[in-house]
Amino acid sequence: MVKAEHAGGLLTIDLDAVAANWRMLRDRVAGADCAAVCKADAYGLGAGPVATRLAREGCRHFFVAHLDEAIALRSVLAAAGSDAPIYVLNGLVAPAAADYLAHRLVPVLNSLGEVEDWSAMARRRGALLPAVLNVDTGMARLGLPPDEAETLAGAPERLDGIALAYVMSHLACGYDRANPLNAEQLAAFVRWRALLPAAEASFANSAGIFLGPDYHADLVRPGASLYGLAPLADESNPMAQVVRLQGKILQIRFVDRGMTVGYGATHRFTRPSRLATVAVGYGDGYLRSLGNAGTGFVGAVRVPLVGRVSMDLVTFDVTDAPESATRPGAMIDLLCDRHGVDALATEAGTIGYEILTALGRRYHRRYIGAGA
Amino acid sequence: MVKAEHAGGLLTIDLDAVAANWRMLRDRVAGADCAAVCKADAYGLGAGPVATRLAREGCRHFFVAHLDEAIALRSVLAAAGSDAPIYVLNGLVAPAAADYLAHRLVPVLNSLGEVEDWSAMARRRGALLPAVLNVDTGMARLGLPPDEAETLAGAPERLDGIALAYVMSHLACGYDRANPLNAEQLAAFVRWRALLPAAEASFANSAGIFLGPDYHADLVRPGASLYGLAPLADESNPMAQVVRLQGKILQIRFVDRGMTVGYGATHRFTRPSRLATVAVGYGDGYLRSLGNAGTGFVGAVRVPLVGRVSMDLVTFDVTDAPESATRPGAMIDLLCDRHGVDALATEAGTIGYEILTALGRRYHRRYIGAGA
Repeated sequence: MVKAEHAGGLLTIDLDAVAANWRMLRDRVAGADCAAVCKADAYGLGAGPVATRLAREGCRHFFVAHLDEAIALRSVLAAAGSDAPIYVLNGLVAPAAADYLAHRLVPVLNSLGEVEDWSAMARRRGALLPAVLNVDTGMARLGLPPDEAETLAGAPERLDGIALAYVMSHLACGYDRANPLNAEQLAAFVRWRALLPAAEASFANSAGIFLGPDYHADLVRPGASLYGLAPLADESNPMAQVVRLQGKILQIRFVDRGMTVGYGATHRFTRPSRLATVAVGYGDGYLRSLGNAGTGFVGAVRVPLVGRVSMDLVTFDVTDAPESATRPGAMIDLLCDRHGVDALATEAGTIGYEILTALGRRYHRRYIGAGA
Repeated sequence: MVKAEHAGGLLTIDLDAVAANWRMLRDRVAGADCAAVCKADAYGLGAGPVATRLAREGCRHFFVAHLDEAIALRSVLAAAGSDAPIYVLNGLVAPAAADYLAHRLVPVLNSLGEVEDWSAMARRRGALLPAVLNVDTGMARLGLPPDEAETLAGAPERLDGIALAYVMSHLACGYDRANPLNAEQLAAFVRWRALLPAAEASFANSAGIFLGPDYHADLVRPGASLYGLAPLADESNPMAQVVRLQGKILQIRFVDRGMTVGYGATHRFTRPSRLATVAVGYGDGYLRSLGNAGTGFVGAVRVPLVGRVSMDLVTFDVTDAPESATRPGAMIDLLCDRHGVDALATEAGTIGYEILTALGRRYHRRYIGAGA
């Protein structure tokens, strides 16, 4: 744990906001269950505190990507008094199949090969083993491709020993409401459900929840929206902001018109300026693509990032901010209500998801809200 | 520690290569001392194993950015039987000044304010305290600006109680041999040295070492080149590669001409293709900007990254690679001798430094070489 007074950045994670987002999504899909996707350490925000809080809010389904994430989450949930199922999206790692059973994890079966391995495990154990079956409808990433899904539909005995918790699929362009691929994927999913053995269904990610009830099925799988990201591009964001990131000012200097700053001398000042050096850099996951593009806030004053982002440092032009608020030791907001994750992502040329998962280990992390 | 058989990626770090790089740099600057810059967890490669090995090679000077990095490194060095000085580049965090003393850390004083604080601490303790004095010569990031350096030159008693280990400065464009700013910074540094109290000098980072002996002074501070990055842009790289990153294939699928892959359906296949889904994504620091731009290797066969990088997954077109080498469970090289860190960085639109510091926590990490 990095001490607050030693740290170059202070990351505050609002568990009440995560919980409020989950409740809002749960209410929106009333009739369906609402899971929580906690892969990649809950999108960088800490799977432990996030899943603990959501379990206490009543969340009964958790998704992760990797087996080891699932094993760690099982301990977290046990400590929180929850026995909720944990689904492993990246599928069944066959040589470790026994580890799924030992930790009561549910693999998402992504291919006929994985179906075969899990069914064989069920036979060996003489038990019915739970699984989710993922059918690809347009991502071409994970999930049974059409030929394998067809084979399975024609030979359902391949699922012997497997208790299908859900048949699922995943949207490729859900964030774009107007994209015709959404309806095409939904139609393909409905077709596969009719052909495959009966099971409950899971289809919607965060975006899918906002595409309407047709997309909800029996279990929705929000991730991004739990953590405050906008579910749909180019639409207003109904989610509560979850993170605040503040960078500490190490030094203030006055620079003349014509001077340059940073590696490559990429920014030249066009007026006498006051420059703040902040102890955050791409080594903290504050992406280097923010060079000469990012912005911070001092209270309500927007301060532009000037020059390149260094590994451990970044410089802001704070000429327009009050001197009293920009002394060494003071903080500049890098992520805040005025400048959320999606806004910073746009400046960095990426998506909010990457801003979150990149959040580094050198920040002092502070959780607020119930359960912190 | 992520188990190898559970992990989506395998990261191998060659400590012999780090050591060989350090020895090569040390020999190159014969007459000067050669430090090691281990900030940002030794550029993402693990400050513990790296510093332990370099201490055993004879490295006697270590630089980090943050106070907490220095405190952790002090324990590492103690365990390795080394009492080498550790310099804190981000300077003196005044409220924690006592922590520098407790862990025998040397602050790099970046402003008159920090000089004043450290001198006051020396008076209170009645002891001579070591420090490095950083004079800015063109970065405008950290270090005494010209007016403060002038004040100090005219009033050297401000340094009372401070034992100046080094006067230092930092190059802004060293990687670009032809840039006139290099010689300008060097000239400015020589001027300041003549004006300030006598002390040994430190000027060169990795790039500076290769700009020639004029830049070496008494102590050089390589970071990037230790870890295999090219010291100079547009010149051949004399350093040994240190990292290999392999991503595990989860699934192989056959796609028809005209089909698309991934979020946003950004890649459309122009021939029937074989597609490998690999369990690495931007949640592992495999930057999202590699979408439709990165490449991997299967043996000697280059395989293009197709579609976007997802949080936990990425897809490669492996049509041209042998089927026997691209079955589920097989590995694709994401970083290797054929495709080093700088090459991947170019594909990502960034620099090798960011590729290294972004290396994620879900890989199975394996150290090889003496001391592993």
